[in-house]
Amino acid sequence: MKLTVLGCYAATPRTISNPTSQVIEFGKHLFLIDCGEGTQIQLRKLKLRFSKINHIFISHLHGDHFFGLPGLVATFRLLGRKTPLHVYGPKGIKEAVSLLLKLGDSWTNYPLYFHELTSNESELVFEDSKVTVHTIPLDHRVYTNGFLFREKTHPRRIDKNKIENYPLDKYTYQQLKDGKDVETRDGRMIPNKELTLDPKPSQSYAFCSDTAYCESIVDLIHKVDVLYHESTFLSSELELAQKTKHSTALQAATIASKAKVDTLLLGHYSTRYGDLNSFLEEANQVFENVLLADDGMQFEF
Amino acid sequence: MKLTVLGCYAATPRTISNPTSQVIEFGKHLFLIDCGEGTQIQLRKLKLRFSKINHIFISHLHGDHFFGLPGLVATFRLLGRKTPLHVYGPKGIKEAVSLLLKLGDSWTNYPLYFHELTSNESELVFEDSKVTVHTIPLDHRVYTNGFLFREKTHPRRIDKNKIENYPLDKYTYQQLKDGKDVETRDGRMIPNKELTLDPKPSQSYAFCSDTAYCESIVDLIHKVDVLYHESTFLSSELELAQKTKHSTALQAATIASKAKVDTLLLGHYSTRYGDLNSFLEEANQVFENVLLADDGMQFEF
Repeated sequence: MKLTVLGCYAATPRTISNPTSQVIEFGKHLFLIDCGEGTQIQLRKLKLRFSKINHIFISHLHGDHFFGLPGLVATFRLLGRKTPLHVYGPKGIKEAVSLLLKLGDSWTNYPLYFHELTSNESELVFEDSKVTVHTIPLDHRVYTNGFLFREKTHPRRIDKNKIENYPLDKYTYQQLKDGKDVETRDGRMIPNKELTLDPKPSQSYAFCSDTAYCESIVDLIHKVDVLYHESTFLSSELELAQKTKHSTALQAATIASKAKVDTLLLGHYSTRYGDLNSFLEEANQVFENVLLADDGMQFEF
Repeated sequence: MKLTVLGCYAATPRTISNPTSQVIEFGKHLFLIDCGEGTQIQLRKLKLRFSKINHIFISHLHGDHFFGLPGLVATFRLLGRKTPLHVYGPKGIKEAVSLLLKLGDSWTNYPLYFHELTSNESELVFEDSKVTVHTIPLDHRVYTNGFLFREKTHPRRIDKNKIENYPLDKYTYQQLKDGKDVETRDGRMIPNKELTLDPKPSQSYAFCSDTAYCESIVDLIHKVDVLYHESTFLSSELELAQKTKHSTALQAATIASKAKVDTLLLGHYSTRYGDLNSFLEEANQVFENVLLADDGMQFEF
């Protein structure tokens, strides 16, 4: 999977930083997560193809996470989009985008579907043959969800060196990939494990922003490969973090540690801090494998 | 007066160009005209002080002219603004901004006033001791107004060389500035013209975008100093201009010529054109004093 951070700063767009938006690529999917003002310009800068984005996930309806959405929806129309676009976000998102388009006496020329979220329990919001997306209910000032992207289990891999030793019909190969035992042309049953290797590991990515420290998400994101967790503040501003329902870097790392994730990626920094290394140092107190997100960064996991 | 062009391209924001937004300065006023996505970043880039903007004029509710407004309104709050903000724009603008703030469970900490426009006749929308702002009804696909900014007549200037020859009390100076005749301490009436020079000329700026060719505006903008008139297309795309209710450079220049303005400033270029000089050449066929706007340009008139 490949993650592109379009923007990872809190509050207002600035000349040197962008509000939240990310693209996570799983195979052929480009999932856009959040859409602060300027997202479409960041997409262009980072040469991500607009036409490959078919699913947009919005965590919550604060401006720095969704004020770029009406413009992006309008731009898709101007670019002659024909394929459906699916938008997942809190109840109200449809009314907001619809009103802004209606005021301009316009609508989309492509099918636009809103999937409004209201549940406080994790739910499956997208699924195809390769990947699932579940919500991760978070604790913020307004109704907010993170999103868990998980590859489905890959097929078992046929061990070419082994199958040469058995008289097998080609149709048995799919049975092997599916984990089934197979019968040779001369009537012997061969156990699956004799002929296959374990599947390529399935990858997972959890996006958690914005949120106060929230232990209830630990089970949901247990052992994910990469956790993006907001760290708006350092511990020196713990009181402010609590008041505004944001997290400190230490709290983000504590969640990563409890959930036994592989990699923690920090972001959603308050613009009050000049040096991001303090976030890394603070998180490293309780969790080792920490990366700092920054605008324009791309990660291959 | 000083004009800063934050953005002057049609349709979508791009890495190399911005949708419509301008700041026109008259004395202590910074009037913001239109607010496409990314306007607040352009304000920062061009080092215009957010706190000096108290009046925002929105021509119409197409995204490239107002999708930056909700974010700017929210940013003013984050910057701790206390002074009132006045927004002038088509009916519906209040509902749109209010809904977007409400969805984020937030409002402004400063007084925010919407002045919704519905008239198809020119009307006075702002006035103080120095300047007036009138609407200029335009002809576009949705309800649209241009705006005419006009300095009030300046006071007559006292001719220092002349007043030395007369025994005058200080209180008569204001009478002279107001154009009145004055009485000397020894009882003589002196005609105003004997003691004063003509006032500094009053300046005027007309913003006209978006609009089809529209002769009804000629009287309203008669002899303005600077006319910004949209020229989305060149004459080679006249049919498209008519269909989308935009203007060609030739049409913009024809309006400038008929209205006998001093300077024509072109903008709102379609992004299909690589070279802006064609706009200048086309406009120059019927009007001499033409300037090309471009993002980031500042003009002192």
